[in-house]
Amino acid sequence: MSPNTTLRRGRPGYDQQGILEVAVAAFNEYGYDATSMGVLADRLKLSKSAIYHHFSSKDEILDRALDQALGSLEGVLDETEAAAGSAADRLDRVLRGAVRVLVDQLPYVTLLLRVRGNTEVERRALARRRAFDKRVTALVAEAQTEGSLRSDIDVRIVERLLFGMINSIVEWYRPGGREDAARLADDVVAVALDGLRVPAGAPRP
Amino acid sequence: MSPNTTLRRGRPGYDQQGILEVAVAAFNEYGYDATSMGVLADRLKLSKSAIYHHFSSKDEILDRALDQALGSLEGVLDETEAAAGSAADRLDRVLRGAVRVLVDQLPYVTLLLRVRGNTEVERRALARRRAFDKRVTALVAEAQTEGSLRSDIDVRIVERLLFGMINSIVEWYRPGGREDAARLADDVVAVALDGLRVPAGAPRP
Repeated sequence: MSPNTTLRRGRPGYDQQGILEVAVAAFNEYGYDATSMGVLADRLKLSKSAIYHHFSSKDEILDRALDQALGSLEGVLDETEAAAGSAADRLDRVLRGAVRVLVDQLPYVTLLLRVRGNTEVERRALARRRAFDKRVTALVAEAQTEGSLRSDIDVRIVERLLFGMINSIVEWYRPGGREDAARLADDVVAVALDGLRVPAGAPRP
Repeated sequence: MSPNTTLRRGRPGYDQQGILEVAVAAFNEYGYDATSMGVLADRLKLSKSAIYHHFSSKDEILDRALDQALGSLEGVLDETEAAAGSAADRLDRVLRGAVRVLVDQLPYVTLLLRVRGNTEVERRALARRRAFDKRVTALVAEAQTEGSLRSDIDVRIVERLLFGMINSIVEWYRPGGREDAARLADDVVAVALDGLRVPAGAPRP
């Protein structure tokens, strides 16, 4: 869309994705409940009716934002399932992909991780998170069965610890720092799959 | 204190620790700001003045609760520093000790992890958390220098990933489940220090 078209439509500066971005930042800053459509309109310097042109309700904004994070995470699993390789290698790809989504869509994933199930939209998002966790858990089980992952830990605990570690990255990661997504993904895989400890008797660095 | 003494003092059923426990549960359920002394008095079936006999303010209750969690975590580091062994072995003990504190004091650690620095009490708690993280980071650095931990990852990232994983346990751990603290500590160490992946060429289970 050219700037000119935007102007003719009378909402200069913000398309739907632009509104979404500002709304997600506000939800993360003040909390979803505390962010009214009036607060959003102030932040966007738009009238409430201009926002309603794009979204029928605050709930729909939340729904769209959560769908973006969940869709990206589910996309990682879909791609991985289509790929060849051992289950451990596919799990490696899932962990890297999840870190990439988290870094690329930090505010959206942050919002997703704060959802507690207070509304229908939130409950649907939690159900999709559980379905995602189940698919990852099945992949861990497959890797244990094929003998590429140690099998003395409950698969659900493995999945929770792995994603506990990955999700915690939203607490401290700031874009533009020294770690880019690829480096951070290497670090996560190094800790989780390969382990930090240098085996006794290995050559000292 | 015998029950009789408690009765004579006119506050049957709750000593200071008992009040603390109920308050921490309420803070975790409703949020600290949303939990007034009136709400606490209702929950405890005590008068507000009976609570004020034990704590001068709601802030003091929070301070005591956070101090309990922080003191326990700092205690793990203190014990470990006094112990012999390689830095990697001491880090192993720190991770296990932190899991034990988290399981034993789940509501207190949950409260600590939600602190965002809105008050002076919260800022002091955050400063103590940062000091704890720094001591763990120094231990990771020592283990890298001695060659017992891989040294290709930034020590601060290692510390954050390790405690991201450990702290995430508060999100799902429920006492009385199938995993006790010792088992869960084994799992964390297995993932973080030894790694999940079975090396290529290792015997299949």
